Amino acid sequence: MPADLIQHPFMSQQALAECNARAMVDAMLAFELALAEVQEARGAVPDGASLAMCKTLEAHAFDLDAIAAGVASGGNAAIPFVKQGRAALQEDLKRYWHQGATSQDVVDTALMLLLKPRLAALDALLVRCRSAALSLMQAHDETVMVGRTLMQQALPITFGVKVAHWAIGLEQARRRLAGLELPVQFGGAVAVHSGLDGPGWDNLGLAFMDALAERLGLAAAVLPWHTDRQPIHALATGLDAAAGAAEKLALDVALLTQTELGEVAEPAAPGMGESSSMPHKRNPVRCALIRGAARQVHGHTTVILNAAAQPLERGLGEWHAEWAPLLDSALLLEGALEQAAVLLEGLEVHPEAMRRNLAATGGGIMAEPVSRLLAPVVGQDAAKRISAEAAETARLTGRPYAEVLAGHEEVAGRVEHTDLERASDPALYLGSSRAQVQRATAWLEGK
Amino acid sequence: MPADLIQHPFMSQQALAECNARAMVDAMLAFELALAEVQEARGAVPDGASLAMCKTLEAHAFDLDAIAAGVASGGNAAIPFVKQGRAALQEDLKRYWHQGATSQDVVDTALMLLLKPRLAALDALLVRCRSAALSLMQAHDETVMVGRTLMQQALPITFGVKVAHWAIGLEQARRRLAGLELPVQFGGAVAVHSGLDGPGWDNLGLAFMDALAERLGLAAAVLPWHTDRQPIHALATGLDAAAGAAEKLALDVALLTQTELGEVAEPAAPGMGESSSMPHKRNPVRCALIRGAARQVHGHTTVILNAAAQPLERGLGEWHAEWAPLLDSALLLEGALEQAAVLLEGLEVHPEAMRRNLAATGGGIMAEPVSRLLAPVVGQDAAKRISAEAAETARLTGRPYAEVLAGHEEVAGRVEHTDLERASDPALYLGSSRAQVQRATAWLEGK
Amino acid sequence: MPADLIQHPFMSQQALAECNARAMVDAMLAFELALAEVQEARGAVPDGASLAMCKTLEAHAFDLDAIAAGVASGGNAAIPFVKQGRAALQEDLKRYWHQGATSQDVVDTALMLLLKPRLAALDALLVRCRSAALSLMQAHDETVMVGRTLMQQALPITFGVKVAHWAIGLEQARRRLAGLELPVQFGGAVAVHSGLDGPGWDNLGLAFMDALAERLGLAAAVLPWHTDRQPIHALATGLDAAAGAAEKLALDVALLTQTELGEVAEPAAPGMGESSSMPHKRNPVRCALIRGAARQVHGHTTVILNAAAQPLERGLGEWHAEWAPLLDSALLLEGALEQAAVLLEGLEVHPEAMRRNLAATGGGIMAEPVSRLLAPVVGQDAAKRISAEAAETARLTGRPYAEVLAGHEEVAGRVEHTDLERASDPALYLGSSRAQVQRATAWLEGK
Amino acid sequence: MPADLIQHPFMSQQALAECNARAMVDAMLAFELALAEVQEARGAVPDGASLAMCKTLEAHAFDLDAIAAGVASGGNAAIPFVKQGRAALQEDLKRYWHQGATSQDVVDTALMLLLKPRLAALDALLVRCRSAALSLMQAHDETVMVGRTLMQQALPITFGVKVAHWAIGLEQARRRLAGLELPVQFGGAVAVHSGLDGPGWDNLGLAFMDALAERLGLAAAVLPWHTDRQPIHALATGLDAAAGAAEKLALDVALLTQTELGEVAEPAAPGMGESSSMPHKRNPVRCALIRGAARQVHGHTTVILNAAAQPLERGLGEWHAEWAPLLDSALLLEGALEQAAVLLEGLEVHPEAMRRNLAATGGGIMAEPVSRLLAPVVGQDAAKRISAEAAETARLTGRPYAEVLAGHEEVAGRVEHTDLERASDPALYLGSSRAQVQRATAWLEGK
Repeated sequence: MPADLIQHPFMSQQALAECNARAMVDAMLAFELALAEVQEARGAVPDGASLAMCKTLEAHAFDLDAIAAGVASGGNAAIPFVKQGRAALQEDLKRYWHQGATSQDVVDTALMLLLKPRLAALDALLVRCRSAALSLMQAHDETVMVGRTLMQQALPITFGVKVAHWAIGLEQARRRLAGLELPVQFGGAVAVHSGLDGPGWDNLGLAFMDALAERLGLAAAVLPWHTDRQPIHALATGLDAAAGAAEKLALDVALLTQTELGEVAEPAAPGMGESSSMPHKRNPVRCALIRGAARQVHGHTTVILNAAAQPLERGLGEWHAEWAPLLDSALLLEGALEQAAVLLEGLEVHPEAMRRNLAATGGGIMAEPVSRLLAPVVGQDAAKRISAEAAETARLTGRPYAEVLAGHEEVAGRVEHTDLERASDPALYLGSSRAQVQRATAWLEGK
Repeated sequence: MPADLIQHPFMSQQALAECNARAMVDAMLAFELALAEVQEARGAVPDGASLAMCKTLEAHAFDLDAIAAGVASGGNAAIPFVKQGRAALQEDLKRYWHQGATSQDVVDTALMLLLKPRLAALDALLVRCRSAALSLMQAHDETVMVGRTLMQQALPITFGVKVAHWAIGLEQARRRLAGLELPVQFGGAVAVHSGLDGPGWDNLGLAFMDALAERLGLAAAVLPWHTDRQPIHALATGLDAAAGAAEKLALDVALLTQTELGEVAEPAAPGMGESSSMPHKRNPVRCALIRGAARQVHGHTTVILNAAAQPLERGLGEWHAEWAPLLDSALLLEGALEQAAVLLEGLEVHPEAMRRNLAATGGGIMAEPVSRLLAPVVGQDAAKRISAEAAETARLTGRPYAEVLAGHEEVAGRVEHTDLERASDPALYLGSSRAQVQRATAWLEGK
Repeated sequence: MPADLIQHPFMSQQALAECNARAMVDAMLAFELALAEVQEARGAVPDGASLAMCKTLEAHAFDLDAIAAGVASGGNAAIPFVKQGRAALQEDLKRYWHQGATSQDVVDTALMLLLKPRLAALDALLVRCRSAALSLMQAHDETVMVGRTLMQQALPITFGVKVAHWAIGLEQARRRLAGLELPVQFGGAVAVHSGLDGPGWDNLGLAFMDALAERLGLAAAVLPWHTDRQPIHALATGLDAAAGAAEKLALDVALLTQTELGEVAEPAAPGMGESSSMPHKRNPVRCALIRGAARQVHGHTTVILNAAAQPLERGLGEWHAEWAPLLDSALLLEGALEQAAVLLEGLEVHPEAMRRNLAATGGGIMAEPVSRLLAPVVGQDAAKRISAEAAETARLTGRPYAEVLAGHEEVAGRVEHTDLERASDPALYLGSSRAQVQRATAWLEGK
Repeated sequence: MPADLIQHPFMSQQALAECNARAMVDAMLAFELALAEVQEARGAVPDGASLAMCKTLEAHAFDLDAIAAGVASGGNAAIPFVKQGRAALQEDLKRYWHQGATSQDVVDTALMLLLKPRLAALDALLVRCRSAALSLMQAHDETVMVGRTLMQQALPITFGVKVAHWAIGLEQARRRLAGLELPVQFGGAVAVHSGLDGPGWDNLGLAFMDALAERLGLAAAVLPWHTDRQPIHALATGLDAAAGAAEKLALDVALLTQTELGEVAEPAAPGMGESSSMPHKRNPVRCALIRGAARQVHGHTTVILNAAAQPLERGLGEWHAEWAPLLDSALLLEGALEQAAVLLEGLEVHPEAMRRNLAATGGGIMAEPVSRLLAPVVGQDAAKRISAEAAETARLTGRPYAEVLAGHEEVAGRVEHTDLERASDPALYLGSSRAQVQRATAWLEGK
């Protein structure tokens, strides 16, 4: 796979380094050793056996290529891994290795262990985004810009409130991710802990499952979830939600960096955003990377949605189809959020361009409050007509809207100039912009 | 659209009756009237105006065809609706109608109002499923059947524990849906309550938003969420999760009703499951309808995932793309859960077929515990060989596995017959099946 | 379903009128009558029977509500339809009704019959788009505008070549749709024409299938395709491709209509694009409708992709899941293409805005050819520096780029003014724009 | 990424080896060198320059890690690659390197070059599948088995005709893939060959594009297709169709290998299909791998569908999102088809199990032809009742259906025993099964 050149750039490099084939083997080993330990604690494995296993296997050089090759015949990574592990153990330990477990226990739990640091990293990135957004909200609480609906200029807002809306989306996603559980998997061949039900062994399977969860720092599910994929669905859609929140930020930034708008720019960085053919350009590459990553996450999520129903006691392809989409989603999202954090922390904001664009329609965007001002004086229909005419004149001549209005023959001398200036001033027509920034700040800060 | 014949059968008929174009208009009206009321309470509308509006408009016959036609030119249902409403009002009320609102406020809130009874109906259906599942779990706590992985016979389980796994998936989905919020939408043209910021009107927009939420029985969002679609993402993926849980049930039931397995059958009903060409068949039609519905929900969810990022202050197609998929998902899911409830409440369970299938491999599925029993006597390798050979003999001759084992020349006289019977009895190799049913019961009952 | 208000606006109204439940029943009837006719022609039905059936049933008022209700118990529309039809027939004809057919034969064929006029309508719309695009290409062959990559201004193009690129996408999609086959379905219960194999009846099933195809104006498949869904996959993805081509047009138009760009505008129409709160706006509603429709088509297509594999001789939900997505996709696409045709036929093009935007960077977009001109005179590094500096000066002062360059101390007197004007004139740096329009024209016209 | 252990097993190992980062660099280099050659042939590059470039760069060790790192800042692999290439060239060649090209030209063309051998490999695999299927069709033209609809036993078919249906799906997909074009990309910065329009250079850009196509063995598009992604849509959906055809095969085989059916088995291979906990099992691992791969392909295709509309002259994330899904789809499909070919070539077919299962309903599946036989003798209602009763008796007693019928008091002596045997013999009720195999054979062989 030319993945290095076409997919990995969208991913977090740190995550790629931490979440590799070696880490997968380590996670599978962590499961098996923890299993031996909890079984030893309940007397199902001789005293000292788990420590002996641990010593042997933590020192053992697992052959990754052989494991990779074995996946294709066994159907999952646990089968060749378990074989290698057993072969490396001294004879009397072999029978206690992987005792009562099935390959899905190993793989599902390993994936949860791989995801655990990723969720922590995602949370940290979203906290960075939140922090950067709070700074921008404060700094631009009074920075007036035009709001745009269906990409047309509509009415004024502040840049602060725009950032607040971004921040709320990201923080909602963060809280959703923070509420997710990473459950341990342990059920044995058919999810009922077959063979762990000897005399005096009541409920041993469930007890092992709970103890494993505690030891591995994972959640304890109610029951084994081999073909109850609700936890995977919740994870995948939670990751997807965060991807959507980052994608919204990237879409807005990309639109606002358009040459004709120029209201914000991506933070400058050496070599960032250059074009292979046009030296004058600075491309919003971070936005492109975020959007490229988020779209891939949506595709991966689609796989998970369609794999929610798995047959009887083990999936036949449905389970297998989850692995790469789930991990890829996490790594793509981490990459996207790294870019989002840098974007928010270093975003170049151009209030003067925002002011320039506010004036692009001459005053058309303020025609409604102006019309309201004029109506009592000239009548409602005339008010609408005059406010529109004056806006067009202002746009064509480049003169201030209030001045054009003041000079209009039906208005001149009948309305105070200061009233005209006030009605046509976008900065005085910001509605709840500031109140929203305050409310969002309190919510973001958890107050 | 031949939707009546190709899509509506998958949907809840009650939901279809309650959630029609008339209901959409009623919901939009409810929004506007509530808006006038909360504005009147704050003095932004003259005393009595909201009541006057209510009287006029609740008696007004909105022209649905005209509204439908108007959608195509305005781009959403609120625009023609608001026009009709304004035209119907007496002159002095017109200016207080839709005051400070934008069409997205109306449509988003109306959709939330339409979804509210649907979420209640979904919860009730999932409670019915849970209740029916609890009965099945209790009734079949000791009903032994074979567990199947990758659709191959593996080891014994009970039917009770299988139902417990279904029930946990459905209940996880129910709890996820129960935790969802249906937020009111109110932000005005660019989501900052433009024009609601006159002297003495501090924070009026947000106050109206909160008051609207309370009056309409919806949640209050932190801020208007015109282009922060996290709430829609959470709703859509929550619905999808429940569809997945129902789909899992339907997949299992469909597999278990296969002619050769015959372990369960859909509840019989007049005309249900008949074939147009084969009178002897009883098709698992409810399973087909559930699976057909769930797959469509996954497609709709994909639309929502890809519409999470909406530009600037209003989507340009992204928002529009959400409406039908979101409502269709709810109606399809309600249809699927109606079928699921009927399935669970009336499922025909055939323990004798389960026993017959347990014997299909002669005893092969019990080869592992048998082998464990023989190992100390004949050695591990011989134990494996003998247990496999005897299973094959049992399968071919139809004789009981224990009897064949007892007669095997290397075993005869060396192992107690009762031990052989015990080791080869699936009913004695159920692991945590019962404990799982108990644990699931407690969790399902909220204990 | 409030579909009238939230989904139908995206669809073709003509298609909705033609493609309703009645049309579905008519299509099913057409299948059954044609079947009787082809069977009569081969002696499998008595002479005159098919005509008698036809007279009775074409006059019969099928009860659509009863059919709709019957779908939910039988699982598809054919079952209750076939029952009603049989009940309406005189006794001696009943046994020849639906002879050798299964419900999937009826439903699949009926869907193909419903799609046939839709594909014709789609072709006609795409021909309209092509024709309108050819006019725009000719009219704007020399209309210079800026090309934008990653939404940043890059280098000049013509509006004509941009339209050519739109047109090629749409025409590629048209040709793909034109190449699709709508195959008849006829295989009987298990797709092997069971019961049509009596003495002297060799290959009768396949002969009937071929004759049906001819009589109904559909394609003859190699074999019945009950669970070989390649034809459905080809149809759905073909529709999706066309949706993507329309969506590209809508995305570009929406971007170019942004207030700050204003290079094109949607055709004006009464009530079209108005805002419920902002009278000054003209929203790109047609673009929003196209984009909203296309996104829903993508979701529907996802359902078809995931339903390609159907079990054994009949789907168990997979087949059922195809119906609504397939027809909805066609109707949504037809709606989108109606908008696209109107857009292309009436698009307002603003060459002066294009010129204005070309100047937005002062001349930055022409820095590369200018730099090439200066290099031999001042050296390569200085050339790059000067061309960039002068562009910035031109942007800030509003003076022409060539004039600023001519006045630059390192350039003055060393380069001909006419050369500077030529190098900085976007209209002289259009590459293959015109050649592309010519080549595209020839290809579009089928030459 | 633990991709080695969780995604690569689903992919073709040969494809993975051939399609790596090195191959991507080679493909980008092939594009640039071919560009220099075609430009030299037209005099746009000095004589000998392209050969000099070739000598230098084919010997140059590109630093893959640096290119990978550069992707993240430039946004695509071409930018750092072009830089490295230029740096490696002698000074006088630098200006002819990448002349007139943009990074999208390089990346799109490189992807097409990577896909070319993959499409060839896919075709070869599908030819292998076809060939194996033809053998199975011939061998099992008379192997009777039961057809199953909605997974219920329905009526008899032959195994040969089932294979024919698989084969047609796969061959339809093969022909669709064979008809796809891999177009070269060459348009320069804004797709109009900016700068290639000097005096005497008429249409040079398009001429270079066509010459590049010929030299690289790719198709020539009508025009550059930077944001006309119809070719990518056609490729991705074509790959998806083939994945669906393989998935259908895998679904059927998985269902038929169920322990209780046992009609076919995956080809045995050392270590293939073993369980980590249950030694007696043979899991249909190839089916699981095919289904796992196909589901991932569907997710990737969803990304492509949603990226069809790309803004203006270059995508902003939409383009970037295509790369990995497109290549991954090809590699996953190649993996799936390798498994499919092995499955078809080595499938174990168990006609005796098919016969056993045909008898599972006693004769219920033959009740319809039996009823037809009895009707003239005992009347239609009695015929239906008797045929059903006798089937149930046959099932419970294990006696042959014809014998039970012959002994029925209302039938005995009134119908010839041979007629009863004939009517109840599945092997005599195969409809067009053989004719279908013949017709499919001719079509598959291209006759």
